[in-house]
Amino acid sequence: MRCAAGIEARQVNELAINIDPIQAGGRLTADAMKAVIAYGDGYSVCDNCRKPNRLDYISKPPIAEFHREVAAWLGMDTVRTVPGARRGFQAVARTYVDKGDPVILTSLSHYTEFLAVEESGGIAREIPAGADHIVTAEAAAQKAEEVRRESGKDAVLAIIDMVDYQYGNLHDVRAIASALHQYDIPVLCNGAYTVGIMPVDGKALGVDFVVGSGHKSMAAPAPSGVLAATAERAGEVFRTTGITGDVTSRKFGIKEPAMMGCTLMGATLVGMMASFPEVRERVRHFDTELANNRIVLSALQSIEGTRVLSEMPRKHTLTRVDTTASFDTVAQKHKKKGFFLASELEEKGITGIIPGATRVWKFNTYGMTTAQAQYLAAAFTDIARHNGLNVA
Amino acid sequence: MRCAAGIEARQVNELAINIDPIQAGGRLTADAMKAVIAYGDGYSVCDNCRKPNRLDYISKPPIAEFHREVAAWLGMDTVRTVPGARRGFQAVARTYVDKGDPVILTSLSHYTEFLAVEESGGIAREIPAGADHIVTAEAAAQKAEEVRRESGKDAVLAIIDMVDYQYGNLHDVRAIASALHQYDIPVLCNGAYTVGIMPVDGKALGVDFVVGSGHKSMAAPAPSGVLAATAERAGEVFRTTGITGDVTSRKFGIKEPAMMGCTLMGATLVGMMASFPEVRERVRHFDTELANNRIVLSALQSIEGTRVLSEMPRKHTLTRVDTTASFDTVAQKHKKKGFFLASELEEKGITGIIPGATRVWKFNTYGMTTAQAQYLAAAFTDIARHNGLNVA
Repeated sequence: MRCAAGIEARQVNELAINIDPIQAGGRLTADAMKAVIAYGDGYSVCDNCRKPNRLDYISKPPIAEFHREVAAWLGMDTVRTVPGARRGFQAVARTYVDKGDPVILTSLSHYTEFLAVEESGGIAREIPAGADHIVTAEAAAQKAEEVRRESGKDAVLAIIDMVDYQYGNLHDVRAIASALHQYDIPVLCNGAYTVGIMPVDGKALGVDFVVGSGHKSMAAPAPSGVLAATAERAGEVFRTTGITGDVTSRKFGIKEPAMMGCTLMGATLVGMMASFPEVRERVRHFDTELANNRIVLSALQSIEGTRVLSEMPRKHTLTRVDTTASFDTVAQKHKKKGFFLASELEEKGITGIIPGATRVWKFNTYGMTTAQAQYLAAAFTDIARHNGLNVA
Repeated sequence: MRCAAGIEARQVNELAINIDPIQAGGRLTADAMKAVIAYGDGYSVCDNCRKPNRLDYISKPPIAEFHREVAAWLGMDTVRTVPGARRGFQAVARTYVDKGDPVILTSLSHYTEFLAVEESGGIAREIPAGADHIVTAEAAAQKAEEVRRESGKDAVLAIIDMVDYQYGNLHDVRAIASALHQYDIPVLCNGAYTVGIMPVDGKALGVDFVVGSGHKSMAAPAPSGVLAATAERAGEVFRTTGITGDVTSRKFGIKEPAMMGCTLMGATLVGMMASFPEVRERVRHFDTELANNRIVLSALQSIEGTRVLSEMPRKHTLTRVDTTASFDTVAQKHKKKGFFLASELEEKGITGIIPGATRVWKFNTYGMTTAQAQYLAAAFTDIARHNGLNVA
């Protein structure tokens, strides 16, 4: 079935249990689906834009109220929407980073954080995660010292993933931020995997910025996200324009250069707004999500040779496993090679792992029902047994 | 009718003739509406992302093909999608502009171009438009000379609006680019009001970059747009990442820092793609759009005292008028004051002009049928007569 010329209608989340690591938290709610239809047209939210003519002041639809609510929800003072979390990193990096300035990331940082540093002319310095793939405050302090010693100046910014994309591990952002603040380094908490998934309180974490991703974790269309700041930092990153035209002497009101003016003018924003009540509610039930994850992980662990690479017990539903000594031994002899696993899962109505992957791979159980988790667990053990692996 | 808690379902374009200056070209096509439903989920286009893991390489949905087709359609070599035209300006400005560098804009430039210059640390230098609100190649050359003389260096970039947002006038980008190229200044053609509305051929214009807006003129959801470059410039603005992690020695493949990696991962992109066949067709029929504009403008001109501020004959459907000596004389005595005009239009099923505006205001007839243009024309003259103005 096509939705337009040459474009197949996507039905992945309608027809299958989707365990794709990055897609689980970005599926639209029913309200968001209705909202993107109603607000699909380009500048749809601008019908009632009045002075001072800025997106976050519009009250119909209730965009201004949404901004206030998200800020309060994240325990921060000020929020702006951005076209993806990466644009939040970019805005902050462009505010603090000049050419040659060191910026602290971690050995588990997402590539978009590196691009934000690169695009600002900065130098990326990674805090090494430990053997357990956890970033600690001690390692952060050591890195800050190392940067000071080697660069002759302190890092100008740190971006710390609350939960990293590689292992789905939860890092102690509060302790890390506290350590880095000893060096007066502003700390951005990358909540791309947490804001909209589990509770995030920027004040409790003691960070300067919290970034969230609409399309990754807030049940919103892409590209969307939020950048939240403390009152102290808001004036820096959300500074208003000062440029003038040399001929016309024009000025541009209260537009914000780091935001490039207004940000999300239609379906992306209203989609995020429409999902927000449900998103705000769902983060309160993250324990149920972890329970579902345990059901699936127990099944995987019962397959002889399978190793969980993420921290245990799990604190997030994104999980990395190593099946080199289980599913990959099947792949060595199977006529479909490594594709047998994705293929057999697909036959059972399960999608989202990289076709061909049978060694180290990731999955995300977020958003599934307990019945679906049980079905997924059984699917893994069934496939294992069917292919001659020992299941405890 | 609400589409979500606290959010009224928007029905502006279903219930009214909408003459909003910025909304006319961004209304979704029927195919785009279907596509945003099918691809509303966050990372919806990433189901079949394989190595080298970049948005513009994905073939299902046919994103790679769309990129090639848009480049050919614009007479350029390489295209990337961006979250709004402004993000195209930003990427180009960040590539060429260092602190204190002069950048040539015009006295009719859009505020987002100024923000792109400001955000890059540049200095905005405006080419003055003539008394007829047209920017000429002569004025461009004079400004380039003036910048050289006063700054001791040449401008590093010029951003020229093909059709400006203030008057909807068509500027001779080809001649302007030719003049600026004498100074080796890269020229970006801002096609926010033209790409997707009327034919744009970057090669014929002789420009280095063409930027288009999806939500303004390509019948796509916001934020979306395209940035097209010549082969010569593509390697500069679409340079690939060079940053590495100091601990992990990680590199990040062929991701592009000026794009911040992948750009539009879902509904915005597929909406733009779904509309593209119709958009490509509609630009061929811009003469019909101008004919409709003439119907409306003739009616406005028949109202004694009304002046057209845009160039005549019109070459674009966005038009600025001065009704200080017509509708505003009514407003002086009317109990609704300046709001009478928008109010009486609203009663006739017409929306999109700023409530209260009766002096200088803009409207856009793009996308209406001839019957709608005739209806709108009659509405203006009816309102004028009804309020005691002379109609020829």
